[in-house]
Amino acid sequence: MVRVGYLGPPGTFGEQAALLFDPSAYFVSLPSHSAVVTAVTKGEVDVGVAAIENSLEGAIGETIDSLIQHEGVMIRHELILPVEQCLIAATGTAMAEIEVVLSHPAALAQCRNYLETALPRARLEAALSTAAAVASAVHTPGTAAIGTARAAALNGAAILERAVQDVKHNKTRFLALASADAGRTGDDKTSVAFTVAHDRPGTLIGVLGELSEREINLTRIESRPSREDLGIYIFLIDFQGHRTDASVSEAIAAVQARSHYFRLLGSYPRFVEKT
Amino acid sequence: MVRVGYLGPPGTFGEQAALLFDPSAYFVSLPSHSAVVTAVTKGEVDVGVAAIENSLEGAIGETIDSLIQHEGVMIRHELILPVEQCLIAATGTAMAEIEVVLSHPAALAQCRNYLETALPRARLEAALSTAAAVASAVHTPGTAAIGTARAAALNGAAILERAVQDVKHNKTRFLALASADAGRTGDDKTSVAFTVAHDRPGTLIGVLGELSEREINLTRIESRPSREDLGIYIFLIDFQGHRTDASVSEAIAAVQARSHYFRLLGSYPRFVEKT
Repeated sequence: MVRVGYLGPPGTFGEQAALLFDPSAYFVSLPSHSAVVTAVTKGEVDVGVAAIENSLEGAIGETIDSLIQHEGVMIRHELILPVEQCLIAATGTAMAEIEVVLSHPAALAQCRNYLETALPRARLEAALSTAAAVASAVHTPGTAAIGTARAAALNGAAILERAVQDVKHNKTRFLALASADAGRTGDDKTSVAFTVAHDRPGTLIGVLGELSEREINLTRIESRPSREDLGIYIFLIDFQGHRTDASVSEAIAAVQARSHYFRLLGSYPRFVEKT
Repeated sequence: MVRVGYLGPPGTFGEQAALLFDPSAYFVSLPSHSAVVTAVTKGEVDVGVAAIENSLEGAIGETIDSLIQHEGVMIRHELILPVEQCLIAATGTAMAEIEVVLSHPAALAQCRNYLETALPRARLEAALSTAAAVASAVHTPGTAAIGTARAAALNGAAILERAVQDVKHNKTRFLALASADAGRTGDDKTSVAFTVAHDRPGTLIGVLGELSEREINLTRIESRPSREDLGIYIFLIDFQGHRTDASVSEAIAAVQARSHYFRLLGSYPRFVEKT
């Protein structure tokens, strides 16, 4: 049976993504995005599912940084999941009884307008995760939590209201990481990370030109701090095509030749959302 | 007197940056990075100081997004501040007495290795800010907080250990935002935000080429979600020179001509760190 690691505890969006990847897998709950990447490196799981990007909040730096640091890990799949935060409390709780709303500070921030309108007198309290907030709120009269529908189900709690995040269209992109990337399907993407000289003009554009002159479409560029100093970055780029395609293979060799540091993160099928 | 807004409460790194900008200003504590930007737009403060980038964690998306959304706000200065997290508790507290460590989850994460080594049996609890954690811990026997030296001083608490973050060289870059940018000093930077067509190759490189062919050094490129959908980004770039320099002025006009959306965020003196 395939062992799939995710950012737990059960009831997080990470678990939902892991279930989407393979509902019949053996699931391993891990404490952080970087622990997911490390577990793949050590062979403790076969696949690690980690969030890489959210449509409102942008890149998830911890995942990118761990991926860059761990040479043995490659991208095998991408998954895109809608984000739906729910207001959750013990069964039978009425809105008027709620004095405290508990969640991870980021989830409270995502629901700020809703909370100010629907529960203007409630006090906001911080928890270490949305799942921990739901597990605590279900046993605390007068307390509600912001969390996932899955966390409500796992804790036998009631969903008082669904989709309470302020921006309704919110999606997270996850990567399934493994010791090898995926074979060519004909509708693929490739990701690489690299650094270039930062003290003279045109070094980044030289790299990107290797793609554009081969008509390869760049789908994403992300800069991450190098951890050396402010102003020195590692770039992560995603582009269309599989590394075994002739033009992509040429472009990768040319990008590598222009880089100080270079790492192929893998080729994988492009995720096609159901509409 | 100049009114300077910052992300409070007093005792945060935001207050330290505001003090660095102008120690004699009238300070206004605000609840979020976006509230700092909004207060500038509404004329409630003359200058808003907001973190834009950290040398370990990367871009601070909320600040970038607010800056892009509020047309009337420009960048007048940049400031770079070292980040030093401290272990703080009531005066007289011994390490052996600490059962709980309280802080914002991001600050706890920054000090994970230290906490596992120095306080392996302590329970970690979440607070809404490092400053709130220090204010609470000073009144709670057996509880320490992770926060700033300034928060310890403001609360009459003791610093048990300084620089407890796992990576010692950690810096945050702040922007001072106002209704107008700064005049030319001869050692300046300029920031712009733009979007390009995302469905064909070479559109981003076309924009960056307008800088490199004029020998203008790009110092930073950041992509932010457009809030339309995953895969559609707003780019923010910083480059050397003032918008009144001839070559920079030409490059800005050329970038604007290639962009769907374009916004000049301002020119400002480059911050030179003391060594």
